[in-house]
Amino acid sequence: MRSPCPISNALDIIGDKWTLLVMRDILMFEKSQYSEFLSSWENISTNILAERLKRLEEAGLISKEPYQTNPVRYRYSATAAGKTLKPIIRAMGKWGLKNIPGTRTPTKHDLESLEIRNKRPSP
Amino acid sequence: MRSPCPISNALDIIGDKWTLLVMRDILMFEKSQYSEFLSSWENISTNILAERLKRLEEAGLISKEPYQTNPVRYRYSATAAGKTLKPIIRAMGKWGLKNIPGTRTPTKHDLESLEIRNKRPSP
Repeated sequence: MRSPCPISNALDIIGDKWTLLVMRDILMFEKSQYSEFLSSWENISTNILAERLKRLEEAGLISKEPYQTNPVRYRYSATAAGKTLKPIIRAMGKWGLKNIPGTRTPTKHDLESLEIRNKRPSP
Repeated sequence: MRSPCPISNALDIIGDKWTLLVMRDILMFEKSQYSEFLSSWENISTNILAERLKRLEEAGLISKEPYQTNPVRYRYSATAAGKTLKPIIRAMGKWGLKNIPGTRTPTKHDLESLEIRNKRPSP
């Protein structure tokens, strides 16, 4: 029998670290482009990122639209259902701040340094 | 560099379906014994359950005390830090109820049938 528990069903979709980190990037840091998702402290790999974006789109939590052709590039944004994840992600951040030493809310400066690092040409 | 983001660090501990289902059982259904964790809709396997209980104990979210010797059996309960996960788990349930068709809050009757099923001798 399939579980009708709403918590368990929610976890089938969002009970995964990388899935929620992509939603964090969209909802809390207003990221929308593939290259922006790659420039995070957590160094998500391209194949995990592509798989999670696909899964989130199939679950109806994000949608994409092309902003460039040849090659085609997409901009990703949260759907109405996706936006309702914000309180859960915010609650996790609050929990982490309180219970895990060494964590801090990323500052604008943190985010800028990450982007600068990401834009540097490889040696 | 290790991420200082509180959301990411929280997800290293609780960004896993089975971990949060064990915390759901403790916090929402007041389960405390090994056999009770095994009797859920989700049919957690004994090796995953044992591993997650150990991980939760190491993370300081649950503690155990023996209630029987020979063989020794433990009762598990949430620590103060573990109890602060309740709003997150409740928010996930609320999200699931709203966004996933066919989910419902488990009734007392649901929980009783699960226990009865679990107590039946195998054929």
